[in-house]
Amino acid sequence: MAGRELSSTRSPRVKAARRLAKRAFRRRDGRFLAEGPQAVREALALDGVLCELFATAEAENRHQDLVARAEKSGIPVFRVGADVMAELAQTVTPQGLLAVCRFVDVSLESALASSPRLVTVLAHVRDPGNAGTVLRTADAAGSDSVIFTDASVDSYNGKCVRASAGSIFHLPVVMGPRFGEVIPALKAAGLTVVAADGAGESSLDTALEAGTLGGPTAWVFGNEAWGLPEEILAAVDEVVRVPIYGGAESLNLATAAAVCLYTSARAQRAG
Amino acid sequence: MAGRELSSTRSPRVKAARRLAKRAFRRRDGRFLAEGPQAVREALALDGVLCELFATAEAENRHQDLVARAEKSGIPVFRVGADVMAELAQTVTPQGLLAVCRFVDVSLESALASSPRLVTVLAHVRDPGNAGTVLRTADAAGSDSVIFTDASVDSYNGKCVRASAGSIFHLPVVMGPRFGEVIPALKAAGLTVVAADGAGESSLDTALEAGTLGGPTAWVFGNEAWGLPEEILAAVDEVVRVPIYGGAESLNLATAAAVCLYTSARAQRAG
Repeated sequence: MAGRELSSTRSPRVKAARRLAKRAFRRRDGRFLAEGPQAVREALALDGVLCELFATAEAENRHQDLVARAEKSGIPVFRVGADVMAELAQTVTPQGLLAVCRFVDVSLESALASSPRLVTVLAHVRDPGNAGTVLRTADAAGSDSVIFTDASVDSYNGKCVRASAGSIFHLPVVMGPRFGEVIPALKAAGLTVVAADGAGESSLDTALEAGTLGGPTAWVFGNEAWGLPEEILAAVDEVVRVPIYGGAESLNLATAAAVCLYTSARAQRAG
Repeated sequence: MAGRELSSTRSPRVKAARRLAKRAFRRRDGRFLAEGPQAVREALALDGVLCELFATAEAENRHQDLVARAEKSGIPVFRVGADVMAELAQTVTPQGLLAVCRFVDVSLESALASSPRLVTVLAHVRDPGNAGTVLRTADAAGSDSVIFTDASVDSYNGKCVRASAGSIFHLPVVMGPRFGEVIPALKAAGLTVVAADGAGESSLDTALEAGTLGGPTAWVFGNEAWGLPEEILAAVDEVVRVPIYGGAESLNLATAAAVCLYTSARAQRAG
C-alpha cells in the first residue's frame, strides 16, 4: 500500500506537483510530470529520475509491480483520490499513476560525444503533440539523440511527454540550445546536416540515390505551418523534400519526419 | 458579397448544417461539413460537391476568390456572424469558411476498377484524427484509393475531414464495406494484401528486399491500441512490422502508415 494518503487538492505536495504543468515552475524545480504506467516504468529504469509517485487506489492495485519497485527504491508513494488525480493529471481520463521526475536532458556536447550516426533536431516545432510524436519516431528509427532548439516547444510539456510514449526516457534529449550553436556542433561531430522542407531542391529519393543518407546524418525539422526560416535553410548542408506522388499539398510534420528518419535508418543499415 | 445574411443560430439552415456534426444526420442527408479555405478550394474543384457555403464577413473578405467562384457556380453563399460560425464549426478557432458538401465516396468496385497499384485500407482505425492523417499520407504517397471498413471511424467525421487537409476530395474513398468483402475484392484486383502489425513475422526491410513491395500492394492498418484482429492477420497475404531500431515500444499508427506507404511508393517506382 502507498506510504501516505493525500486527501486534499490543497495539500502542499499536490500543489507543488500541480505547478509543474507550467514551464516556469518546471525550470525552477528541474522537474516535470510523467503520466501513466508506461512512463512510470521507463522512469523507474533510470537511476534517480523518479522523485515522487502519486497513485489512485485502483491504479495501485492494477500496477502493484510498479508501486512495489518504487517503494523498494525509496521513492515516496502517495495514495490520492480521483479528485486529486484529476487535479494533477492533464488528461481527460487520467490513468491513475503520475510521477514527478527530475529533468533527464543532457548537454549538446555530451549528446554528440560518441560518434552519433543519426541525430534529430526540432528547430521550430511548436505543437507539443507533434514534438512528442517526432521524439517517439526518432527513438524507433534508432536516432542517437534528439535536440529541441530554443525556438521549439519545451520537451517537458505534458502533451509532449505523453506523445513521446516513454521515449523521453530512452535516448539523450538536449533542451533549448540556439540553432546557431547547434549547426557547428553537428558538423564538428561529422554529421551531414539535412533539413526537411517542402521547398527543398532535391527530393528524398534523389538524396537516397546520391548516397547522401548512408553516412552520419542530422535531420532538421521545422514548423508545422511554415517550415524552416531562410537562415536555417542556408546554413544546412542540404535541403530535402519528401516527394508528393499524389494530390496532397504536403505531409504533416510527424509523418514527414517518420519518412525521412526511416529512410536514413534503412540507408545506413544497407550501406 | 454573400447573397444572404443569416444572423441567428436558430435559423433552420444553420440548424440543418449544425446537425451534420452527427453521423446519423450525415448518413440521412448524404452530406458533411468541411471547414476552412483549403477544404473549400478542393470541394469547389469537384463538380456538384459543394452545396452551401457559410462565411463570416472577415473570411469573405480574405477569400474573395473562393466566394466569387462559389457564387459563379450557383452555390448559395450565406454570410454569418462569429456566433453562428462558432455554432457551426467544430474547431476552437474557426477559420470563417464552412462548406456543406455532398458525400464523395465511391463503391468498392469502382475504386478497384482501373488496375490500382497502391491501396490503403483502414481496418479498425477509431481515432478520426489518425484516420484523416493516414488519408492525407496515403494521398501524398500516391495511393490510388483509401478504404474505410465498417469497423473504422466515419470518413466524414469533422476531425477526420480536417486532418485529411483536403485529401478526402482528392482520391477515391470507399466508406463502410465489411473487411470480409474487401479482402477478395483486393485479391481479385491483383493486389498483394499486406497488413502492418507490430507482431508481423517479417520486417518491412525484409519484405522490401524480398521484392514483395514492388508490385501492386494493398496495405491494411489496424487499431491504434491493439492492432489487427486474428482473422484479418490470417486472411492477408503477409503481415509486416515496421522495424524498431531504438528503444521505443512501437510507432503511432499514422507514422507507421507513413513509413509503410512511402516504402511501397519508392519500391514501385524503383522497380
